[in-house]
Amino acid sequence: MAKQISDLKLGILGGGQLGRMLIQQGLNYNLTTHVLEPDAEAPCKDIASKFTVGSLTDYDTVYNFGKDVDIITIEIEKVNTEALEALERDGKIVYPQPRVINLIKDKGVQKQFFVENDIPTAPFKLVSSKNDLLNAPFNFPFILKQRKDGYDGHGVMKINSEADIERAFEEPSLIEQLIDFEKEVAVIVARNEDGETSTFPMVDMEFNSEANLVEFLVSPSEFSLEIQEKGKEIAIKIAKILNITGILAVEMFVTKDGQLLVNELAPRPHNSGHQSIEGNYTSQYEQHLRSIFNLPLGNTDLRGSAVMINLLGEKEHTGLANYEGLNNVLKLSGANVHLYGKKYTKPFRKMGHITVVDNDRSKAIEKANYIKNNFKITSK
Amino acid sequence: MAKQISDLKLGILGGGQLGRMLIQQGLNYNLTTHVLEPDAEAPCKDIASKFTVGSLTDYDTVYNFGKDVDIITIEIEKVNTEALEALERDGKIVYPQPRVINLIKDKGVQKQFFVENDIPTAPFKLVSSKNDLLNAPFNFPFILKQRKDGYDGHGVMKINSEADIERAFEEPSLIEQLIDFEKEVAVIVARNEDGETSTFPMVDMEFNSEANLVEFLVSPSEFSLEIQEKGKEIAIKIAKILNITGILAVEMFVTKDGQLLVNELAPRPHNSGHQSIEGNYTSQYEQHLRSIFNLPLGNTDLRGSAVMINLLGEKEHTGLANYEGLNNVLKLSGANVHLYGKKYTKPFRKMGHITVVDNDRSKAIEKANYIKNNFKITSK
Repeated sequence: MAKQISDLKLGILGGGQLGRMLIQQGLNYNLTTHVLEPDAEAPCKDIASKFTVGSLTDYDTVYNFGKDVDIITIEIEKVNTEALEALERDGKIVYPQPRVINLIKDKGVQKQFFVENDIPTAPFKLVSSKNDLLNAPFNFPFILKQRKDGYDGHGVMKINSEADIERAFEEPSLIEQLIDFEKEVAVIVARNEDGETSTFPMVDMEFNSEANLVEFLVSPSEFSLEIQEKGKEIAIKIAKILNITGILAVEMFVTKDGQLLVNELAPRPHNSGHQSIEGNYTSQYEQHLRSIFNLPLGNTDLRGSAVMINLLGEKEHTGLANYEGLNNVLKLSGANVHLYGKKYTKPFRKMGHITVVDNDRSKAIEKANYIKNNFKITSK
Repeated sequence: MAKQISDLKLGILGGGQLGRMLIQQGLNYNLTTHVLEPDAEAPCKDIASKFTVGSLTDYDTVYNFGKDVDIITIEIEKVNTEALEALERDGKIVYPQPRVINLIKDKGVQKQFFVENDIPTAPFKLVSSKNDLLNAPFNFPFILKQRKDGYDGHGVMKINSEADIERAFEEPSLIEQLIDFEKEVAVIVARNEDGETSTFPMVDMEFNSEANLVEFLVSPSEFSLEIQEKGKEIAIKIAKILNITGILAVEMFVTKDGQLLVNELAPRPHNSGHQSIEGNYTSQYEQHLRSIFNLPLGNTDLRGSAVMINLLGEKEHTGLANYEGLNNVLKLSGANVHLYGKKYTKPFRKMGHITVVDNDRSKAIEKANYIKNNFKITSK
């Protein structure tokens, strides 16, 4: 008899909120989960079937972790892919595939992949020294991005002048022409082992410029159906060229003249899909599980408009988290609170999110703005 | 600073699927949960913050368990209420209140409560011996119900003749006139500590007559708005008279001439509210947490039609569970699978449920029927 999802052990590299929400969905399938994570207090700690504290970048740690499970997936790209490749050779299933993780974890390689495959993206150049920055083929301001290990605004810098070059980091990086975009949007695509693909409707992302983090996410996108269709085609094209199994978030800029330029990929559940838990018939977490366990993909249609607010720790607060104004949120119809099980807050730390669902898109946005002003995460 | 839900420890008496789904919802609030349950392999085992194997009916076990938590609730009525009363005297919060559990756990006392408070219910008589049955004030057939500890069709018997009386159980029981009802329906009402009340829209229950278990649940009810309104009024009336804090499921018969007769109460999350997870803006689990933590109650409006199918173990199968036809289910748009983490199946054991959501009620029913015929839980 074929093995079923409820008989299998899923190994997850990374124990943060993305892993936590993946496990929450997996509970509905009796899925056994084993998490590897360096932080002993990470969000998955209490809900994984087994939680192992260890390095995600150490070959032996990852290899030994993987030997104990049936299928391995990730919730973060910064993992030891050599160990994953060895596990693949041993016959373990690793989704997304290590070669996909390798391609995506290096933003330079990612950009070259876009160019080679006629995927629209902003002009860029790989750089390795301050000298390269002085000889940039772009006018100021331009963007400097670390090729590896950037996250949540870390490893990205806007270079406005020669003085900024002095302060720039000297990691292997790329520089990119500053795009005068209208908005950033995202499309999540899923591809299962059989090659079935499915996309989620496009969402609009609104950034908190101070934290350089997504603050709001609005579903559906306000862009035309033509632009949404184009985004969907780009996402499916990338998933097919990569032959990825799993979900893939495709972040794109919409330029002022209506062009889509791919910014970045993430081969895993992504911040731009949180609203799908309540906003769509199938969530990104469910869809990722269906993809990697080769189950039929779910219907991604909207169940209504949804606005997701990232709950970031307040600026001047570090310590035991305190959720101020929770009652204000709970009085709003359609507000769904998701806290990530983090005991301590710090400035701009992602502590949770709230998704407001409403049939009326503008009302959902209004409620999200109310939450932004009436709910705060402070320290005690 | 006032204590918040994320700072508190919730003790749950009972570790079955109702507790499991309550914990799943509590995860979104960083809620710490401690479960007491006699079965070491029960559904809450892997997801409770702490899981203690022990008797729910033993005074010392329940009392010592309760001393360690901040708020105590139940997912089953068969618990030692003397211990809960002692904990209340010690200053612990126990919701629902022990006096409510006491009233409801004895179906005889429950019936007397209905009569005393002008709540419509089927005519009945308390009995204690076979002799009482021979002198029943009702014609055959009538219903014999054990006063305490019945569940899922256990402790209920239809008495068709004197021969059946011979086979009847001799527990303290009640007999009830057989109601020629059109259908059984349920309304779940919530009441928080502040006294705010809110009801879920009425649902229709369809029984599997062989297993004497709810097989389908259809939301919303097909009865007239007038009957639905009447059901809502009855549910609120009962919650207010009881002064209950928490949720209360009110099961009712709709007679052929459109009268509502209250059948039974359950002061906890209930099988008739499972569909609310996807079918309503707020689920019964969320609403129970909001009630007992005295948070504002959520909007219970429907997000569409929903049909819930209980997944019962197949008749002649006992052993390690096997989920046959899962792919058939996952191909249906709007089908949400909830397995309860039970390793072993046995005939008619509740192994999980599936909720189908669809804007078209008849399509949701059609899909549920398809699932009934194309998904089976067998043993390996």
